Amino acid sequence: MPTDVRLPENDLLALALDFLLSHGLNAPQGHSLARMLVDAQRDGSFSHGLQRLPGTLNTMKHPRFNRHADPAPESVSPAVVRVDAQFGFSCLAAERGIDALIGKAGTIGIGLLAVNNGFHSTALWPLVERIAAAGLVGLSMNPTHAWVAPAGGTKGLLGTNPLAFAWPRKGKPPYVFDFATSAASRADIAMHRNAGREIPDGWGLNGQGECTTDPAEVLAGAMLPFGGHKGSAIATMIELMAGPLIGDRMSRQSQDFDHGADAAPCHGELLLAFSPDIIGGAGVGEGAERLFAGFSDQGARLPGDRRYRMREVSARDGIAVSSALLQKIRSQTA
Amino acid sequence: MPTDVRLPENDLLALALDFLLSHGLNAPQGHSLARMLVDAQRDGSFSHGLQRLPGTLNTMKHPRFNRHADPAPESVSPAVVRVDAQFGFSCLAAERGIDALIGKAGTIGIGLLAVNNGFHSTALWPLVERIAAAGLVGLSMNPTHAWVAPAGGTKGLLGTNPLAFAWPRKGKPPYVFDFATSAASRADIAMHRNAGREIPDGWGLNGQGECTTDPAEVLAGAMLPFGGHKGSAIATMIELMAGPLIGDRMSRQSQDFDHGADAAPCHGELLLAFSPDIIGGAGVGEGAERLFAGFSDQGARLPGDRRYRMREVSARDGIAVSSALLQKIRSQTA
Repeated sequence: MPTDVRLPENDLLALALDFLLSHGLNAPQGHSLARMLVDAQRDGSFSHGLQRLPGTLNTMKHPRFNRHADPAPESVSPAVVRVDAQFGFSCLAAERGIDALIGKAGTIGIGLLAVNNGFHSTALWPLVERIAAAGLVGLSMNPTHAWVAPAGGTKGLLGTNPLAFAWPRKGKPPYVFDFATSAASRADIAMHRNAGREIPDGWGLNGQGECTTDPAEVLAGAMLPFGGHKGSAIATMIELMAGPLIGDRMSRQSQDFDHGADAAPCHGELLLAFSPDIIGGAGVGEGAERLFAGFSDQGARLPGDRRYRMREVSARDGIAVSSALLQKIRSQTA
Repeated sequence: MPTDVRLPENDLLALALDFLLSHGLNAPQGHSLARMLVDAQRDGSFSHGLQRLPGTLNTMKHPRFNRHADPAPESVSPAVVRVDAQFGFSCLAAERGIDALIGKAGTIGIGLLAVNNGFHSTALWPLVERIAAAGLVGLSMNPTHAWVAPAGGTKGLLGTNPLAFAWPRKGKPPYVFDFATSAASRADIAMHRNAGREIPDGWGLNGQGECTTDPAEVLAGAMLPFGGHKGSAIATMIELMAGPLIGDRMSRQSQDFDHGADAAPCHGELLLAFSPDIIGGAGVGEGAERLFAGFSDQGARLPGDRRYRMREVSARDGIAVSSALLQKIRSQTA
């Protein structure tokens, strides 16, 4: 669906909120998820934007989904805070815990936020950006569903396990990256299938565990991690850190929990915050700026650049969206 | 140098210690570095083993190197401990801080150890293994020298920036990985050059920032990160987290600091420890074992497997080493 119209941010927030509330989601979750999806849409991350709204119907129909979730942070230690998402959307639980996370890291230098039992909401970068807005370094990760074979394997075991990182910069938007640890996203592979195009070598395996460039075979078989055995190891680390370490499901268990409902994955989410002031002392910011200058000196872009450019355009001209998608959302608003 | 003899561990420890002490290194550093290098040799990580001993002469001749370093941990907060390596080898400083790190993580769930001003010693996995031996999850990273171009760039800016992770397992050695975030190690590229062989596409760039398969051109030009823009982003994160975040040099500054001495890189090292008991509660271990079972079910190996097999053989038959290297070390022992 090409983006062919531009609308003000508030109109899109209202559209998303109306949709969610009309299906019985409580207001706190509705506001939180609408904000996250519109943020992604605003920054040109269309795959993580409003096109996710229709799919939330499947998630909200999952027998365990909780439209009335009202999560609250629980302090586990001076460094650790936990929020049980109560089987609602994870984003509200993460937001409800983020002030405590920031408070802990700002006091003793490091903090950990464990979000449990949340249905996957959208990208992680809006959350790590909020940590960076408090002058802290943010790191986040979560499992998904067991679509990805480990390096040397033949079958799905690991999730697409995204990793997001934010580094605060004075007077500038933070350095932020957020990507799946699979070679390509599931959406990208599906797009190739829908367009009748082959995918590159290295994206996935067929049902027999053999390399294939047929996207349909990969979707029925197994995706591959990015970067060979190294990416596979990092995806495994994420599986462990955002799974058992925080007492939550891994990708295989999340997929079992779905039980064919085609809901969003339901799992934990790990957020870490670090205080450069406490850990590194004076001059941390200037040190990092020398690194970023080394990127621009050689014409290498920083990973968040495109999002920030889109954000500026959206603020000036409105947020790009597909009129067909708008129509679909409106027609499905109860 | 092929490994053609096997010697008992204690003989190799004595050999390495004699070498280091004979060049004026104090006993605490000598014992620590000898232990680290013999551990690597024992586990078949020959590139990080005893072959590094002759090169320590260059490091110890660096005008800022401190043969008398006697680092001590300083508690920064209930979560953070710092050890100034005092411009000696980093391994002693890391060891001197690791008990405090484990104590903090064991008390409040997470701990951070910042090692500053250490000359690079060898691999990181022996350190994260020690964290795992205490029942904690370990993570470590450091910059090196600015040999690696960022994705989309043309010139060295990032280090080969290793990342090491350990997950404790009951009754089994931990799950451990440790790898450079460059596509290949510098030693591997040099080996290709010495053998007159081309390197694969994607390992590096020539002095003009163009792709090349000539290893000599890459060593004079720039290496590339593993996994394209994702690996590049992770290498950048390591540069920031184990650099400015802990108030220490990044790879570019470490290289400037070397000033042609051809010493080991001098930089900071970040270690994190997490307590599954405090953060995740009961059942963490069983959860993780389900993941590891998913590897063996499909014949995928865990990253530490080869090291553990070599360790068993070394314990039974002695540690493999090259007689030519032994001779070189003995002839250079003052």
